[in-house]
Amino acid sequence: MRMYDLIKKKRDGYSLSTKEIEFIVNGYVKGDIADYQMAAFLMAVFFRGLDERETYDLTMSMKNSGDTVDLSQIEGFKVDKHSTGGVGDKTTLVVLPIVASYGVRIAKMSGRALGHTGGTIDKLESIPGLRTDLSEKEFLDVVNRAGFSIVGQTKNLVPADKKIYALRDATATVDQISLIAASIVSKKLAGGADGIVFDVKTGSGAFLKTLEESRKLASVMIKTVARSSKKAVAVISNMDQPLGNMVGNALEVFEAIQCLKGNGPEDLTELSVTLAHEMLNLAGINVSSEEIRDRIASGKPLEKFKSFVALQGGDISYVENPDKLLGNSKVFELRANEDGFVESINSELIGIASMVLGGGRLRKEDTIDHSVGIQVVKKLGDRVKPEDVLVRLYTSDKSDKIYAEKLIREAYVIGSRKPNTTPVVLEVIR
Amino acid sequence: MRMYDLIKKKRDGYSLSTKEIEFIVNGYVKGDIADYQMAAFLMAVFFRGLDERETYDLTMSMKNSGDTVDLSQIEGFKVDKHSTGGVGDKTTLVVLPIVASYGVRIAKMSGRALGHTGGTIDKLESIPGLRTDLSEKEFLDVVNRAGFSIVGQTKNLVPADKKIYALRDATATVDQISLIAASIVSKKLAGGADGIVFDVKTGSGAFLKTLEESRKLASVMIKTVARSSKKAVAVISNMDQPLGNMVGNALEVFEAIQCLKGNGPEDLTELSVTLAHEMLNLAGINVSSEEIRDRIASGKPLEKFKSFVALQGGDISYVENPDKLLGNSKVFELRANEDGFVESINSELIGIASMVLGGGRLRKEDTIDHSVGIQVVKKLGDRVKPEDVLVRLYTSDKSDKIYAEKLIREAYVIGSRKPNTTPVVLEVIR
Repeated sequence: MRMYDLIKKKRDGYSLSTKEIEFIVNGYVKGDIADYQMAAFLMAVFFRGLDERETYDLTMSMKNSGDTVDLSQIEGFKVDKHSTGGVGDKTTLVVLPIVASYGVRIAKMSGRALGHTGGTIDKLESIPGLRTDLSEKEFLDVVNRAGFSIVGQTKNLVPADKKIYALRDATATVDQISLIAASIVSKKLAGGADGIVFDVKTGSGAFLKTLEESRKLASVMIKTVARSSKKAVAVISNMDQPLGNMVGNALEVFEAIQCLKGNGPEDLTELSVTLAHEMLNLAGINVSSEEIRDRIASGKPLEKFKSFVALQGGDISYVENPDKLLGNSKVFELRANEDGFVESINSELIGIASMVLGGGRLRKEDTIDHSVGIQVVKKLGDRVKPEDVLVRLYTSDKSDKIYAEKLIREAYVIGSRKPNTTPVVLEVIR
Repeated sequence: MRMYDLIKKKRDGYSLSTKEIEFIVNGYVKGDIADYQMAAFLMAVFFRGLDERETYDLTMSMKNSGDTVDLSQIEGFKVDKHSTGGVGDKTTLVVLPIVASYGVRIAKMSGRALGHTGGTIDKLESIPGLRTDLSEKEFLDVVNRAGFSIVGQTKNLVPADKKIYALRDATATVDQISLIAASIVSKKLAGGADGIVFDVKTGSGAFLKTLEESRKLASVMIKTVARSSKKAVAVISNMDQPLGNMVGNALEVFEAIQCLKGNGPEDLTELSVTLAHEMLNLAGINVSSEEIRDRIASGKPLEKFKSFVALQGGDISYVENPDKLLGNSKVFELRANEDGFVESINSELIGIASMVLGGGRLRKEDTIDHSVGIQVVKKLGDRVKPEDVLVRLYTSDKSDKIYAEKLIREAYVIGSRKPNTTPVVLEVIR
């Protein structure tokens, strides 16, 4: 088998066999296939696509390229969630304690912040002492005791994805549905779950801008998971503005705790309840959304969260008294100049503004200031008068407040008419 | 400017500016742009194409990537020819002496054999003593004295093409019309000619199989040359079978000399006369094809050839007595088994058979046996009876005669009906 022939075959619109796809993935990971041949292949895939079977084969070849997590020591149905990434998305911190409070176990691996999107691992590290670099034994132990655990990705999980993604990122071949699906699903399957709920973000602040594209990605991911004899569901959620009000690491943990206390913003609560509902459903537990809201009110999910924080070494006084999470920042208020309604908020610019304040990374090696961020006070459709507070900046001495303000002013469009607003949960695809 | 953005721009179907194309070519030659980014870009070009202006810009950027030949010391209009490559194509050796005999100068750089196609430089080296590695001074001196000269390509002529072609060859991005045109035209323009006649081969034995593709390449090349304020014409010629009867280095020189003596096969003579006619026309000399045939009969072109051979150090006794060129080979005859007509001849297999006998190269570093090759006795449409000679193999002790015979038997299809045959010159595009 020669890579040249496989590039040409895909270029000319033919399907590749299972063996051919394995040859490509294994050869590339081993270094037998050069970057330039892989780059040409990926661009051919961009134009020709992959069919369902090819996407599945690519996913499985990638999954099998490194270590996989064995969750057999955990009893019962193991469920996982994945979000395609949004600004202010702290649902994992809300959903996992809810689901765990019903006895369903979640062994979750999460990522770090990069560019305008945050990462659950960085958010958790806002809580002093909390460790996310557990050994596999510790990880499984926390899952069994707290009902869930969240750790950073192990080094050798799906090395094929790391190498292929880096190349796609340099060759303008990232935005292809099958390649995106294989990248996401290979990691989730390597993580060992029996069922997965995908949160596919759509809208101006998501990397998929239209409902149609988001539906397509959801459908390809669900079909790929189904072929591997696991279960999956996708929630398509709106990302026309940041989720909730808080953007930034400690600020998002603060808001997640508020939500677990029943005091969260409605969009965050609604999406968290929907995701929890679907995860429970996959695990065979049928409860209504109202029952889940009652469960939050009962305080049990918050107890689960506290137990998780404690077992991973975190200081639970920050959960009991979340104001401590906001303690160290100087707060500046940005006020409106115009009269009208919030017509649009560019989420990406809000995410970048948070990064500029010190809350995110431009490069992997950058360090993060957990305490900084942005409180989005005025949201889509809100009435705004001059001198009303639009956002609050939580800053440190190192924050570039001038640039952050410029970005936020650009992000907000105030118009004269009240715009139609869309619900946060758009569709559930099974 | 970032290569990533240019890949994406082309991927999404936009035209690149002159500066953007210069950035890509210069950056790639210098090594600032990685192979994998260039590979992704070339695959995007494969799907999106380049418009006329982009093709011109690519051609000029490539041309300017290295040395160019200054022909200002040669008086008058300088004309060049280019063939897309065919089995048995020795027209250069016939056409240049004819054109030079009218006082039009040709300073030609040629290539070596690779794969199933021959190279003029290798063919010329069949004549003992003949040098093709002249200095620029010697080269121009021979052009001024003999009317034409043929040398190997200088090392630093269009380095961008060498590097880009090698990458295309490894990434299935060779067969794209604009990339082919830029590769050919950049080298011809760097060679310094005022006018170029392109011989675009078409048919089963050419790399462009259909008349439509050949017309398109011809048209793109002519427009590109015209934009650079030079003149060009394209002859589309048939490559459904080897040109003439001889395939192999010394054998092709032998046949070219026969042709210059007025005893060549009709297809070779016809194509040579047409190419000479178009080259003279570009130089402002209007002579009919019949006049050119008379000119051959006058012996003047043969005298030009002899003078060229002598000035480049070759033994002219091989021109005066061309049988010396065939002297060292053992000849084997392959005979027909069936009764019928020659329905098709696979030229590529004939070219490979000649290579297998020792007359060509599989790799650049392989050595060549100039004396071996194939005489194609029966051509398309010829009546064949059992025991008729199909081809003669000119072999050395090292020739793999068994494999060569196998290839030739495969190349010939003998059918029961006399097929329609096509003329060698199909179209002239101006």
